[in-house]
Amino acid sequence: MVTKNQIKLVVSLKQKKYRSQHGLFVVEGEKLVNELLNSGFKTYQIFVDDTGLVQKFEQAEVVPAKTLKQMSSLTHPSGILGVFRVKDSEALDLDDWVVVLDAVRDPGNMGTIIRLCDWFGIKRLVCSTDTVDCYNPKVLQATMGSIARVNVEYTDLITFLDKTDIPIYGAYMDGESVYGSNLAKKGVLVMGNEANGVSAEVGKFITKKISIPQFGATTTESLNVATATGILLNEIRRG
Amino acid sequence: MVTKNQIKLVVSLKQKKYRSQHGLFVVEGEKLVNELLNSGFKTYQIFVDDTGLVQKFEQAEVVPAKTLKQMSSLTHPSGILGVFRVKDSEALDLDDWVVVLDAVRDPGNMGTIIRLCDWFGIKRLVCSTDTVDCYNPKVLQATMGSIARVNVEYTDLITFLDKTDIPIYGAYMDGESVYGSNLAKKGVLVMGNEANGVSAEVGKFITKKISIPQFGATTTESLNVATATGILLNEIRRG
Repeated sequence: MVTKNQIKLVVSLKQKKYRSQHGLFVVEGEKLVNELLNSGFKTYQIFVDDTGLVQKFEQAEVVPAKTLKQMSSLTHPSGILGVFRVKDSEALDLDDWVVVLDAVRDPGNMGTIIRLCDWFGIKRLVCSTDTVDCYNPKVLQATMGSIARVNVEYTDLITFLDKTDIPIYGAYMDGESVYGSNLAKKGVLVMGNEANGVSAEVGKFITKKISIPQFGATTTESLNVATATGILLNEIRRG
Repeated sequence: MVTKNQIKLVVSLKQKKYRSQHGLFVVEGEKLVNELLNSGFKTYQIFVDDTGLVQKFEQAEVVPAKTLKQMSSLTHPSGILGVFRVKDSEALDLDDWVVVLDAVRDPGNMGTIIRLCDWFGIKRLVCSTDTVDCYNPKVLQATMGSIARVNVEYTDLITFLDKTDIPIYGAYMDGESVYGSNLAKKGVLVMGNEANGVSAEVGKFITKKISIPQFGATTTESLNVATATGILLNEIRRG
Protein backbone atom coordinates (compact mmCIF):
# COMPACT_ATOMS: atom_id res chain seq x y z
CA MET A 1 0.00 0.00 0.00
CA VAL A 2 1.24 3.41 -0.90
CA THR A 3 1.52 5.73 2.08
CA LYS A 4 0.62 9.39 2.31
CA ASN A 5 4.29 10.17 2.82
CA GLN A 6 5.24 8.38 -0.39
CA ILE A 7 2.65 10.39 -2.34
CA LYS A 8 3.91 13.58 -0.72
CA LEU A 9 7.50 12.71 -1.64
CA VAL A 10 6.67 12.07 -5.30
CA VAL A 11 4.65 15.30 -5.54
CA SER A 12 7.50 17.27 -3.93
CA LEU A 13 9.89 16.08 -6.66
CA LYS A 14 8.20 18.45 -9.13
CA GLN A 15 10.38 21.09 -7.47
CA LYS A 16 14.13 21.30 -7.98
CA LYS A 17 14.71 22.01 -4.30
CA TYR A 18 13.26 18.65 -3.28
CA ARG A 19 14.90 16.78 -6.17
CA SER A 20 18.26 18.02 -4.91
CA GLN A 21 17.39 17.33 -1.28
CA HIS A 22 16.32 13.72 -1.90
CA GLY A 23 18.56 12.98 -4.90
CA LEU A 24 15.52 11.62 -6.73
CA PHE A 25 13.58 12.47 -9.89
CA VAL A 26 10.44 11.30 -11.67
CA VAL A 27 9.75 10.17 -15.23
CA GLU A 28 6.39 9.17 -16.67
CA GLY A 29 5.23 6.95 -19.50
CA GLU A 30 6.08 3.35 -20.38
CA LYS A 31 8.84 4.22 -22.87
CA LEU A 32 10.65 6.64 -20.59
CA VAL A 33 10.40 4.38 -17.53
CA ASN A 34 11.74 1.48 -19.61
CA GLU A 35 14.65 3.57 -20.92
CA LEU A 36 15.60 4.53 -17.37
CA LEU A 37 15.22 0.95 -16.07
CA ASN A 38 17.69 -0.18 -18.75
CA SER A 39 20.19 2.58 -18.03
CA GLY A 40 22.79 3.46 -15.44
CA PHE A 41 20.18 5.12 -13.22
CA LYS A 42 19.23 3.30 -10.03
CA THR A 43 15.52 2.67 -9.51
CA TYR A 44 13.91 4.00 -6.34
CA GLN A 45 10.29 3.02 -6.95
CA ILE A 46 7.87 2.38 -9.83
CA PHE A 47 4.16 3.11 -9.55
CA VAL A 48 1.49 1.87 -11.96
CA ASP A 49 -2.22 2.47 -11.80
CA ASP A 50 -4.62 -0.44 -11.51
CA THR A 51 -5.90 -0.17 -15.08
CA GLY A 52 -3.21 -1.42 -17.40
CA LEU A 53 0.49 -1.92 -16.93
CA VAL A 54 0.43 -4.17 -13.85
CA GLN A 55 1.55 -7.32 -15.73
CA LYS A 56 4.43 -5.61 -17.53
CA PHE A 57 6.05 -4.11 -14.44
CA GLU A 58 6.05 -6.76 -11.75
CA GLN A 59 8.28 -4.78 -9.40
CA ALA A 60 5.82 -1.87 -9.45
CA GLU A 61 3.62 -0.70 -6.64
CA VAL A 62 -0.03 -0.67 -7.80
CA VAL A 63 -1.95 2.46 -6.86
CA PRO A 64 -5.46 3.69 -7.71
CA ALA A 65 -5.61 5.79 -10.92
CA LYS A 66 -6.64 8.84 -8.91
CA THR A 67 -3.53 8.55 -6.71
CA LEU A 68 -1.28 8.33 -9.77
CA LYS A 69 -3.02 11.38 -11.19
CA GLN A 70 -2.23 13.20 -7.96
CA MET A 71 1.47 12.28 -8.26
CA SER A 72 1.68 13.08 -11.98
CA SER A 73 2.92 16.28 -13.67
CA LEU A 74 0.98 15.43 -16.84
CA THR A 75 -2.48 16.64 -17.81
CA HIS A 76 -3.16 13.11 -19.05
CA PRO A 77 -1.20 10.73 -16.81
CA SER A 78 0.13 7.71 -18.65
CA GLY A 79 -0.58 5.03 -16.04
CA ILE A 80 3.05 4.62 -14.98
CA LEU A 81 5.49 6.76 -13.05
CA GLY A 82 9.06 5.90 -12.08
CA VAL A 83 11.16 7.46 -9.34
CA PHE A 84 14.92 7.17 -9.97
CA ARG A 85 18.07 8.25 -8.21
CA VAL A 86 19.98 11.23 -9.57
CA LYS A 87 23.31 10.04 -10.99
CA ASP A 88 26.65 11.53 -10.06
CA SER A 89 28.10 12.85 -13.29
CA GLU A 90 30.96 10.70 -14.53
CA ALA A 91 34.39 12.19 -15.05
CA LEU A 92 34.58 11.70 -18.81
CA ASP A 93 37.71 12.57 -20.73
CA LEU A 94 37.80 15.30 -23.34
CA ASP A 95 38.36 12.73 -26.09
CA ASP A 96 35.43 13.83 -28.23
CA TRP A 97 33.27 16.92 -28.78
CA VAL A 98 31.57 18.32 -25.68
CA VAL A 99 28.53 20.61 -25.69
CA VAL A 100 28.44 23.45 -23.14
CA LEU A 101 25.23 25.35 -22.28
CA ASP A 102 25.51 28.87 -20.89
CA ALA A 103 22.25 29.70 -19.09
CA VAL A 104 19.77 27.88 -21.35
CA ARG A 105 16.45 28.32 -19.56
CA ASP A 106 13.66 26.73 -21.55
CA PRO A 107 12.87 23.11 -20.57
CA GLY A 108 11.78 22.23 -24.12
CA ASN A 109 15.06 23.51 -25.56
CA MET A 110 17.07 21.64 -22.93
CA GLY A 111 15.23 18.39 -23.61
CA THR A 112 15.67 18.75 -27.36
CA ILE A 113 19.40 19.47 -26.92
CA ILE A 114 19.86 16.33 -24.80
CA ARG A 115 18.04 14.32 -27.50
CA LEU A 116 20.28 15.88 -30.17
CA CYS A 117 23.45 15.05 -28.20
CA ASP A 118 22.24 11.45 -28.02
CA TRP A 119 21.51 11.36 -31.79
CA PHE A 120 24.91 12.74 -32.68
CA GLY A 121 26.75 10.60 -30.14
CA ILE A 122 27.83 13.44 -27.84
CA LYS A 123 28.32 11.86 -24.42
CA ARG A 124 29.05 14.92 -22.35
CA LEU A 125 26.86 18.01 -21.82
CA VAL A 126 28.34 20.59 -19.44
CA CYS A 127 25.90 23.24 -18.12
CA SER A 128 26.28 26.48 -16.20
CA THR A 129 24.63 26.28 -12.79
CA ASP A 130 21.86 28.64 -13.99
CA THR A 131 20.88 26.32 -16.87
CA VAL A 132 17.49 24.63 -16.39
CA ASP A 133 17.64 21.43 -14.31
CA CYS A 134 17.85 18.33 -16.52
CA TYR A 135 15.60 16.45 -14.08
CA ASN A 136 12.79 18.98 -14.53
CA PRO A 137 9.71 16.94 -15.64
CA LYS A 138 9.27 18.99 -18.84
CA VAL A 139 12.93 18.47 -19.78
CA LEU A 140 12.67 14.74 -19.17
CA GLN A 141 9.53 14.39 -21.33
CA ALA A 142 11.26 16.32 -24.14
CA THR A 143 14.39 14.12 -24.01
CA MET A 144 12.30 11.08 -25.05
CA GLY A 145 14.59 8.89 -22.94
CA SER A 146 17.91 10.29 -24.17
CA ILE A 147 18.72 11.40 -20.63
CA ALA A 148 19.70 7.76 -20.08
CA ARG A 149 22.61 8.08 -22.53
CA VAL A 150 23.97 11.61 -22.12
CA ASN A 151 26.06 12.62 -19.12
CA VAL A 152 24.79 16.02 -17.92
CA GLU A 153 26.97 18.02 -15.50
CA TYR A 154 26.32 21.35 -13.79
CA THR A 155 29.43 23.30 -12.97
CA ASP A 156 31.11 26.69 -12.95
CA LEU A 157 31.84 27.24 -16.65
CA ILE A 158 34.73 29.61 -16.02
CA THR A 159 36.62 26.96 -14.06
CA PHE A 160 35.72 24.27 -16.61
CA LEU A 161 36.73 26.29 -19.66
CA ASP A 162 39.89 27.58 -18.01
CA LYS A 163 41.13 23.98 -17.63
CA THR A 164 40.11 22.97 -21.17
CA ASP A 165 42.95 22.50 -23.65
CA ILE A 166 40.92 21.67 -26.79
CA PRO A 167 39.48 24.37 -29.13
CA ILE A 168 36.42 26.18 -27.77
CA TYR A 169 33.84 27.20 -30.38
CA GLY A 170 30.96 29.53 -29.55
CA ALA A 171 27.72 30.08 -31.50
CA TYR A 172 27.36 33.80 -32.30
CA MET A 173 25.15 35.72 -34.72
CA ASP A 174 28.27 37.44 -36.10
CA GLY A 175 30.63 34.46 -36.05
CA GLU A 176 32.48 33.02 -39.02
CA SER A 177 30.38 30.78 -41.29
CA VAL A 178 30.51 27.25 -39.92
CA TYR A 179 30.72 25.96 -43.53
CA GLY A 180 34.28 27.17 -43.92
CA SER A 181 35.41 26.77 -40.34
CA ASN A 182 37.51 23.59 -40.60
CA LEU A 183 36.22 22.31 -37.30
CA ALA A 184 38.71 20.43 -35.12
CA LYS A 185 38.51 16.66 -34.54
CA LYS A 186 37.49 17.35 -30.98
CA GLY A 187 36.38 20.56 -29.38
CA VAL A 188 33.90 22.30 -27.14
CA LEU A 189 30.72 23.85 -28.60
CA VAL A 190 29.28 26.63 -26.41
CA MET A 191 25.60 27.55 -26.91
CA GLY A 192 24.23 30.63 -25.16
CA ASN A 193 21.07 31.82 -23.48
CA GLU A 194 17.83 32.14 -25.53
CA ALA A 195 17.68 35.93 -25.29
CA ASN A 196 21.26 37.05 -24.65
CA GLY A 197 23.49 34.46 -26.30
CA VAL A 198 26.87 33.55 -24.79
CA SER A 199 27.67 35.68 -21.73
CA ALA A 200 30.63 38.08 -21.77
CA GLU A 201 32.54 36.14 -19.07
CA VAL A 202 32.23 32.85 -20.94
CA GLY A 203 32.94 34.65 -24.24
CA LYS A 204 36.52 35.36 -23.08
CA PHE A 205 37.34 31.67 -23.40
CA ILE A 206 36.02 31.23 -26.95
CA THR A 207 38.76 30.30 -29.44
CA LYS A 208 36.53 30.75 -32.49
CA LYS A 209 33.11 32.33 -32.97
CA ILE A 210 30.99 30.44 -35.50
CA SER A 211 27.56 31.06 -37.01
CA ILE A 212 25.02 29.43 -39.30
CA PRO A 213 24.75 31.45 -42.53
CA GLN A 214 21.42 33.14 -43.13
CA PHE A 215 19.83 32.99 -46.60
CA GLY A 216 16.59 34.92 -46.03
CA ALA A 217 15.75 38.50 -45.05
CA THR A 218 18.14 39.95 -42.53
CA THR A 219 15.28 41.03 -40.27
CA THR A 220 14.73 37.38 -39.37
CA GLU A 221 15.00 36.54 -35.69
CA SER A 222 18.03 34.37 -34.85
CA LEU A 223 17.48 30.62 -34.88
CA ASN A 224 16.15 28.96 -31.75
CA VAL A 225 19.02 27.59 -29.58
CA ALA A 226 17.89 23.96 -29.90
CA THR A 227 17.57 24.17 -33.70
CA ALA A 228 20.96 25.89 -33.94
CA THR A 229 22.53 23.17 -31.76
CA GLY A 230 21.10 20.52 -34.11
CA ILE A 231 22.52 22.20 -37.20
CA LEU A 232 25.96 22.75 -35.61
CA LEU A 233 26.20 19.17 -34.31
CA ASN A 234 25.33 17.97 -37.81
CA GLU A 235 28.14 20.17 -39.17
CA ILE A 236 30.55 18.72 -36.61
CA ARG A 237 29.68 15.11 -37.39
CA ARG A 238 29.34 15.34 -41.18
CA GLY A 239 33.03 16.27 -41.36
CA MET B 1 -15.03 52.79 -28.23
CA VAL B 2 -14.66 49.05 -28.70
CA THR B 3 -18.01 47.29 -29.02
CA LYS B 4 -19.12 43.98 -27.54
CA ASN B 5 -19.31 42.58 -31.06
CA GLN B 6 -15.71 43.54 -31.80
CA ILE B 7 -14.53 41.79 -28.63
CA LYS B 8 -16.62 38.75 -29.53
CA LEU B 9 -15.12 38.70 -33.03
CA VAL B 10 -11.51 38.82 -31.77
CA VAL B 11 -12.18 36.10 -29.20
CA SER B 12 -13.83 33.92 -31.87
CA LEU B 13 -10.63 34.09 -33.97
CA LYS B 14 -8.91 31.72 -31.53
CA GLN B 15 -10.82 29.02 -33.42
CA LYS B 16 -9.89 27.95 -36.94
CA LYS B 17 -13.57 27.81 -37.96
CA TYR B 18 -14.04 31.53 -37.32
CA ARG B 19 -10.65 32.47 -38.78
CA SER B 20 -11.73 30.80 -42.04
CA GLN B 21 -15.25 32.30 -41.88
CA HIS B 22 -14.01 35.89 -41.38
CA GLY B 23 -10.68 35.60 -43.23
CA LEU B 24 -8.98 37.20 -40.22
CA PHE B 25 -6.32 36.22 -37.71
CA VAL B 26 -4.72 37.68 -34.57
CA VAL B 27 -1.11 38.28 -33.55
CA GLU B 28 0.09 39.67 -30.23
CA GLY B 29 3.16 41.55 -29.05
CA GLU B 30 4.86 44.64 -30.39
CA LYS B 31 7.43 42.82 -32.50
CA LEU B 32 4.93 40.53 -34.21
CA VAL B 33 2.39 43.30 -34.85
CA ASN B 34 5.16 45.45 -36.35
CA GLU B 35 6.36 42.62 -38.59
CA LEU B 36 2.83 42.14 -39.90
CA LEU B 37 2.25 45.89 -40.37
CA ASN B 38 5.37 45.98 -42.54
CA SER B 39 4.40 42.94 -44.60
CA GLY B 40 2.00 42.02 -47.39
CA PHE B 41 -0.80 41.36 -44.90
CA LYS B 42 -3.65 43.87 -44.77
CA THR B 43 -4.44 45.34 -41.37
CA TYR B 44 -7.98 44.94 -40.07
CA GLN B 45 -7.63 46.53 -36.63
CA ILE B 46 -5.00 47.11 -33.93
CA PHE B 47 -5.86 47.23 -30.24
CA VAL B 48 -3.57 48.53 -27.48
CA ASP B 49 -4.30 48.74 -23.81
CA ASP B 50 -4.27 52.06 -22.03
CA THR B 51 -1.01 51.42 -20.19
CA GLY B 52 1.79 51.69 -22.66
CA LEU B 53 1.92 51.49 -26.42
CA VAL B 54 -0.62 54.22 -27.25
CA GLN B 55 1.99 56.66 -28.60
CA LYS B 56 3.73 54.11 -30.79
CA PHE B 57 0.61 52.92 -32.60
CA GLU B 58 -1.47 55.93 -33.50
CA GLN B 59 -3.90 54.02 -35.67
CA ALA B 60 -4.73 51.69 -32.77
CA GLU B 61 -7.97 51.52 -30.83
CA VAL B 62 -7.28 52.02 -27.12
CA VAL B 63 -9.05 49.56 -24.84
CA PRO B 64 -8.89 48.93 -21.09
CA ALA B 65 -6.24 46.39 -20.07
CA LYS B 66 -8.91 44.01 -18.85
CA THR B 67 -10.63 44.05 -22.27
CA LEU B 68 -7.34 43.26 -24.00
CA LYS B 69 -6.81 40.43 -21.56
CA GLN B 70 -10.22 39.09 -22.52
CA MET B 71 -9.30 39.16 -26.23
CA SER B 72 -5.82 37.68 -25.71
CA SER B 73 -4.68 34.07 -26.09
CA LEU B 74 -1.68 34.70 -23.86
CA THR B 75 -1.37 34.06 -20.15
CA HIS B 76 0.47 37.37 -19.89
CA PRO B 77 -0.99 39.70 -22.56
CA SER B 78 1.56 42.00 -24.09
CA GLY B 79 -0.51 45.18 -24.30
CA ILE B 80 -1.01 45.03 -28.06
CA LEU B 81 -3.04 42.81 -30.35
CA GLY B 82 -3.38 43.09 -34.13
CA VAL B 83 -6.10 41.64 -36.33
CA PHE B 84 -4.99 41.05 -39.93
CA ARG B 85 -6.56 39.66 -43.08
CA VAL B 86 -5.61 36.16 -44.17
CA LYS B 87 -3.60 36.39 -47.39
CA ASP B 88 -4.44 34.42 -50.53
CA SER B 89 -1.40 32.30 -51.21
CA GLU B 90 0.58 33.57 -54.17
CA ALA B 91 1.19 31.34 -57.16
CA LEU B 92 4.97 31.09 -56.85
CA ASP B 93 7.02 29.29 -59.46
CA LEU B 94 9.02 26.19 -58.66
CA ASP B 95 12.28 28.06 -59.23
CA ASP B 96 13.80 27.21 -55.85
CA TRP B 97 13.44 24.61 -53.12
CA VAL B 98 9.95 24.14 -51.69
CA VAL B 99 9.13 22.55 -48.33
CA VAL B 100 6.07 20.28 -48.14
CA LEU B 101 4.48 19.26 -44.83
CA ASP B 102 2.45 16.07 -44.70
CA ALA B 103 0.14 16.25 -41.65
CA VAL B 104 2.42 18.09 -39.22
CA ARG B 105 0.20 18.63 -36.18
CA ASP B 106 2.14 20.40 -33.46
CA PRO B 107 1.83 24.23 -33.46
CA GLY B 108 5.34 24.66 -32.01
CA ASN B 109 6.85 22.50 -34.76
CA MET B 110 4.91 24.36 -37.44
CA GLY B 111 6.01 27.76 -36.13
CA THR B 112 9.65 26.65 -35.91
CA ILE B 113 9.51 25.29 -39.47
CA ILE B 114 8.14 28.60 -40.81
CA ARG B 115 10.96 30.42 -38.97
CA LEU B 116 13.51 27.99 -40.47
CA CYS B 117 12.12 28.50 -44.00
CA ASP B 118 12.54 32.24 -43.47
CA TRP B 119 16.13 31.81 -42.22
CA PHE B 120 17.11 29.63 -45.15
CA GLY B 121 15.30 31.78 -47.70
CA ILE B 122 12.60 29.21 -48.59
CA LYS B 123 9.64 31.25 -49.86
CA ARG B 124 7.11 28.51 -50.34
CA LEU B 125 5.71 26.09 -47.77
CA VAL B 126 3.04 23.71 -49.10
CA CYS B 127 0.94 21.89 -46.49
CA SER B 128 -1.55 19.03 -46.58
CA THR B 129 -5.01 20.17 -45.52
CA ASP B 130 -4.63 18.24 -42.24
CA THR B 131 -1.49 20.15 -41.24
CA VAL B 132 -2.01 22.57 -38.33
CA ASP B 133 -3.36 26.00 -39.37
CA CYS B 134 -0.56 28.55 -39.77
CA TYR B 135 -2.82 31.25 -38.29
CA ASN B 136 -3.22 29.29 -35.04
CA PRO B 137 -2.09 31.68 -32.25
CA LYS B 138 0.54 29.22 -30.97
CA VAL B 139 2.00 28.82 -34.45
CA LEU B 140 2.15 32.59 -34.96
CA GLN B 141 3.94 33.15 -31.64
CA ALA B 142 6.49 30.46 -32.53
CA THR B 143 7.19 31.96 -35.98
CA MET B 144 8.55 35.14 -34.34
CA GLY B 145 7.24 37.16 -37.29
CA SER B 146 8.53 34.91 -40.06
CA ILE B 147 4.94 34.31 -41.19
CA ALA B 148 5.27 37.71 -42.88
CA ARG B 149 7.92 36.38 -45.27
CA VAL B 150 6.96 32.77 -46.04
CA ASN B 151 4.07 31.91 -48.35
CA VAL B 152 2.08 29.10 -46.71
CA GLU B 153 -0.43 27.17 -48.83
CA TYR B 154 -2.86 24.39 -47.88
CA THR B 155 -3.68 22.02 -50.68
CA ASP B 156 -4.20 18.43 -51.72
CA LEU B 157 -0.62 17.10 -51.76
CA ILE B 158 -1.38 14.34 -54.24
CA THR B 159 -2.52 16.86 -56.87
CA PHE B 160 0.40 19.18 -56.08
CA LEU B 161 3.08 16.48 -56.23
CA ASP B 162 1.59 14.89 -59.33
CA LYS B 163 2.08 18.17 -61.23
CA THR B 164 5.61 18.71 -59.87
CA ASP B 165 8.45 18.15 -62.33
CA ILE B 166 11.43 18.82 -60.02
CA PRO B 167 12.99 16.10 -57.79
CA ILE B 168 10.94 15.21 -54.71
CA TYR B 169 12.98 14.28 -51.62
CA GLY B 170 11.36 12.77 -48.54
CA ALA B 171 12.76 12.55 -45.00
CA TYR B 172 12.74 8.91 -43.87
CA MET B 173 14.45 7.08 -41.01
CA ASP B 174 15.81 4.53 -43.53
CA GLY B 175 16.63 6.94 -46.36
CA GLU B 176 20.04 7.42 -47.96
CA SER B 177 22.46 9.59 -45.98
CA VAL B 178 21.86 13.22 -46.93
CA TYR B 179 25.65 13.76 -46.80
CA GLY B 180 26.20 11.78 -49.99
CA SER B 181 22.92 12.61 -51.70
CA ASN B 182 24.08 15.19 -54.27
CA LEU B 183 20.98 17.28 -53.75
CA ALA B 184 19.53 18.97 -56.86
CA LYS B 185 19.70 22.74 -57.40
CA LYS B 186 15.99 22.93 -56.82
CA GLY B 187 13.65 20.34 -55.42
CA VAL B 188 10.82 19.57 -53.04
CA LEU B 189 11.57 18.46 -49.45
CA VAL B 190 8.70 16.47 -47.90
CA MET B 191 8.58 16.24 -44.09
CA GLY B 192 6.08 13.86 -42.49
CA ASN B 193 3.84 13.67 -39.46
CA GLU B 194 5.40 13.65 -35.95
CA ALA B 195 4.36 10.06 -35.16
CA ASN B 196 3.93 8.39 -38.54
CA GLY B 197 6.32 10.13 -40.92
CA VAL B 198 5.43 10.59 -44.59
CA SER B 199 2.11 8.92 -45.46
CA ALA B 200 2.01 6.00 -47.90
CA GLU B 201 0.00 7.96 -50.51
CA VAL B 202 2.47 10.86 -50.50
CA GLY B 203 5.37 8.40 -50.37
CA LYS B 204 4.52 7.18 -53.90
CA PHE B 205 5.69 10.53 -55.31
CA ILE B 206 9.07 10.58 -53.56
CA THR B 207 12.00 10.48 -56.01
CA LYS B 208 14.62 9.94 -53.29
CA LYS B 209 14.36 9.03 -49.61
CA ILE B 210 16.96 10.83 -47.50
CA SER B 211 17.93 10.67 -43.84
CA ILE B 212 20.17 12.36 -41.30
CA PRO B 213 22.87 9.90 -40.18
CA GLN B 214 22.76 8.84 -36.55
CA PHE B 215 25.96 8.70 -34.48
CA GLY B 216 24.63 7.60 -31.11
CA ALA B 217 22.89 4.48 -29.80
CA THR B 218 20.40 3.04 -32.28
CA THR B 219 17.65 2.97 -29.65
CA THR B 220 17.44 6.77 -29.88
CA GLU B 221 14.06 8.18 -30.87
CA SER B 222 14.03 9.81 -34.32
CA LEU B 223 14.76 13.52 -34.43
CA ASN B 224 11.90 15.94 -33.92
CA VAL B 225 10.40 17.06 -37.28
CA ALA B 226 11.32 20.73 -36.78
CA THR B 227 14.93 19.92 -35.84
CA ALA B 228 15.22 17.54 -38.80
CA THR B 229 13.83 20.22 -41.15
CA GLY B 230 16.48 22.65 -39.88
CA ILE B 231 19.32 20.20 -40.48
CA LEU B 232 18.05 19.25 -43.96
CA LEU B 233 17.55 22.89 -45.03
CA ASN B 234 21.09 23.60 -43.85
CA GLU B 235 22.30 20.67 -45.98
CA ILE B 236 20.38 22.03 -48.98
CA ARG B 237 21.78 25.54 -48.64
CA ARG B 238 25.36 24.71 -47.69
CA GLY B 239 25.75 22.99 -51.08
